Amino acid sequence: MAPFITKFEPYEPEEYVVCKKSGTKSPARLEKVAIVGSGSWGTALARVAATNTAEQEGFDPEVRMWVREQEIHNGKRLIDIINEGSRQNEKYLPDVDLPENLIAVPSLVETVRNASLILFVVPHQFLPAALKELKASGVVNPKARAISAIKGVDVVIEKDAAGKTTQADIYTFPSVIEKELGIPCTALGGANIALDVGRGEFCETTIGVPSAKDAALWHAVFDGPKFRVHPIEDVAGVSLSGALKNIVALAAGFVDGMGLGGNTKAAILRVGLLEMAMFTQDFFPGSSSFTFSHHSAGMADLITTSFGGRNRKCAEAFIKSKPEYAPAGTVTNGKGKTFLELEEELLNGQKLQGTLTAQEVFDFLEARGRLEAYPLFEKVYRISFEGMDPKRLFEDL
Amino acid sequence: MAPFITKFEPYEPEEYVVCKKSGTKSPARLEKVAIVGSGSWGTALARVAATNTAEQEGFDPEVRMWVREQEIHNGKRLIDIINEGSRQNEKYLPDVDLPENLIAVPSLVETVRNASLILFVVPHQFLPAALKELKASGVVNPKARAISAIKGVDVVIEKDAAGKTTQADIYTFPSVIEKELGIPCTALGGANIALDVGRGEFCETTIGVPSAKDAALWHAVFDGPKFRVHPIEDVAGVSLSGALKNIVALAAGFVDGMGLGGNTKAAILRVGLLEMAMFTQDFFPGSSSFTFSHHSAGMADLITTSFGGRNRKCAEAFIKSKPEYAPAGTVTNGKGKTFLELEEELLNGQKLQGTLTAQEVFDFLEARGRLEAYPLFEKVYRISFEGMDPKRLFEDL
Repeated sequence: MAPFITKFEPYEPEEYVVCKKSGTKSPARLEKVAIVGSGSWGTALARVAATNTAEQEGFDPEVRMWVREQEIHNGKRLIDIINEGSRQNEKYLPDVDLPENLIAVPSLVETVRNASLILFVVPHQFLPAALKELKASGVVNPKARAISAIKGVDVVIEKDAAGKTTQADIYTFPSVIEKELGIPCTALGGANIALDVGRGEFCETTIGVPSAKDAALWHAVFDGPKFRVHPIEDVAGVSLSGALKNIVALAAGFVDGMGLGGNTKAAILRVGLLEMAMFTQDFFPGSSSFTFSHHSAGMADLITTSFGGRNRKCAEAFIKSKPEYAPAGTVTNGKGKTFLELEEELLNGQKLQGTLTAQEVFDFLEARGRLEAYPLFEKVYRISFEGMDPKRLFEDL
Repeated sequence: MAPFITKFEPYEPEEYVVCKKSGTKSPARLEKVAIVGSGSWGTALARVAATNTAEQEGFDPEVRMWVREQEIHNGKRLIDIINEGSRQNEKYLPDVDLPENLIAVPSLVETVRNASLILFVVPHQFLPAALKELKASGVVNPKARAISAIKGVDVVIEKDAAGKTTQADIYTFPSVIEKELGIPCTALGGANIALDVGRGEFCETTIGVPSAKDAALWHAVFDGPKFRVHPIEDVAGVSLSGALKNIVALAAGFVDGMGLGGNTKAAILRVGLLEMAMFTQDFFPGSSSFTFSHHSAGMADLITTSFGGRNRKCAEAFIKSKPEYAPAGTVTNGKGKTFLELEEELLNGQKLQGTLTAQEVFDFLEARGRLEAYPLFEKVYRISFEGMDPKRLFEDL
């Protein structure tokens, strides 16, 4: 199909030991998976991983998932519900049974102890504190490998004493994790609404991982007949696509909020995908436009998110909360709601990634003087935070 | 953006005549548009064209649209409703006002007489007869230009006396029109659900037209602030995409019929788009994969059609008519309905293009021994016509 595919041989343990007495051959050491995060997507991926590690040679079946002590659902600790109650993440992934070998652990450090394969899947707001704690604890095995399913970018803008921007940089989360923990980090992303993955519906995902050995490992952790994993070389592309698609999904939600149809939405998705690919190639020159046009992490993820995701949902509600767009008979507050209000109202404790990414990308492009090349990204920001009329979304596209 | 874009200067009449008395300058001759077809998409495009010809120098404002004498709606001739009644195409594009300068004409030959720009937008089943009539009449101006918005392909399979295939060929409709009428023909396609275009919602379309001069002309006929026209060089790609996307839309409808979610649908769309691009490049080597990945005629059209089009709708109904997939409480006929039955039941006289295209493409690929490379196209055909279990859609993808 497309270039930039990572070629790999199916995973096999590197070394075996043979029992002198029985002659039984077994892997010399077991890979062990840890899941840092337990939102809907984290739990869905943990379920996939735990199912696979239970069935495959070379893996410690036990998969630990970090669930904060303070997570409460219906008066009970979420951790107890998962480990001893319904064995479901009733708060973030209801009605999906979790395997026995998936263990919720309240301590981040204990979750990661002894792990050789660490999935990071926290909202990107929470990553810096988690990395700091892991680094300070010294618990991360220097031979471990990480993978990031976090949607977002890390933008760093430096200003001088007079408030003038002196430098603006953008980093992907895999690169942030690599730098902080000193272990290699790859990226996972695709057309994966968490609840549908939890229910075991057929889907695909993309892993950005240039090393054939690591591709085989991560493929073994996540691939299954209903969750097809395709490794490609482009780590930055997979990571950026997962972040930037949420900006486009906000625009898709604006289209829905204005009551416009499929043609308009498809046009926004097309232009959005081009801006996503252009942005990535502009600022991460080693990445590939094929990631966007050919892989699940690109166009497929954008489609799913723009029709079914939480960013679309809140963006539609954002428009409809405005008096001029409110459906007939609705009572509004006379000025519309902010995204912060809608996040609290609609997301049951989940975080909205798109608005944060829209803001960071806007700040970065503005600091670099490059806003002009990204009219859709710019307008999503201005509609979200500066009161721009959403009808102006279609200008200059 | 992408390569293969046709560069052109905005349209201007080539020659002017100056009135000796008043000094008024006017174009030496006027371009005249004819619309061959009056279904929902034909009427929506006719409305766009008539609006533009009324406003632009160099065009005869009158746009003629072919409406068959026999087209009846609520006991009245559709032609009379359009010309003298509500001035709407009440049968195929209800609630959309048509401009005064758009005239419904019962004779195909009179529709095309004196036209310099001819749009073909009939269901592909009806094209051969229309071309035959036009050719026999000698009415087509040899300097005229054509554009095809027809969704489909022309597959010709030759067999020997023993029934063995001796040759299999595939043609796009622009090439069929060029050959039959001896005038150049370009292609138009994009994310354009007719009713939404009729309502004036923002959308984009792609025109496949290699000549800069023709690109300027067609752009002038169709482009507007709410209907953005992007000319690219790839005629075959635009034409094939419009045909093949309907096969994928059937698969999308199967997914909906089985009650599966957005992840699955996005995966089907991704794989479908790759098969569409691969098919086109395999059999029309001059075409560009960018048509599929970057342009409205490609991924955007596929998205719109797979979420909102008639092929999706009938395919969903096809699955749900089967006893094993019928929603609880529904009475079925015990064996499911055929597409022919559903077409009559659901489409109000419109034709289903996807099933016909699926069959033609299947026959062509089978004759060429190339089915194996197109598992999605193959399965859509087998599910539609050979009773294959729709769950098998996901095998080998």
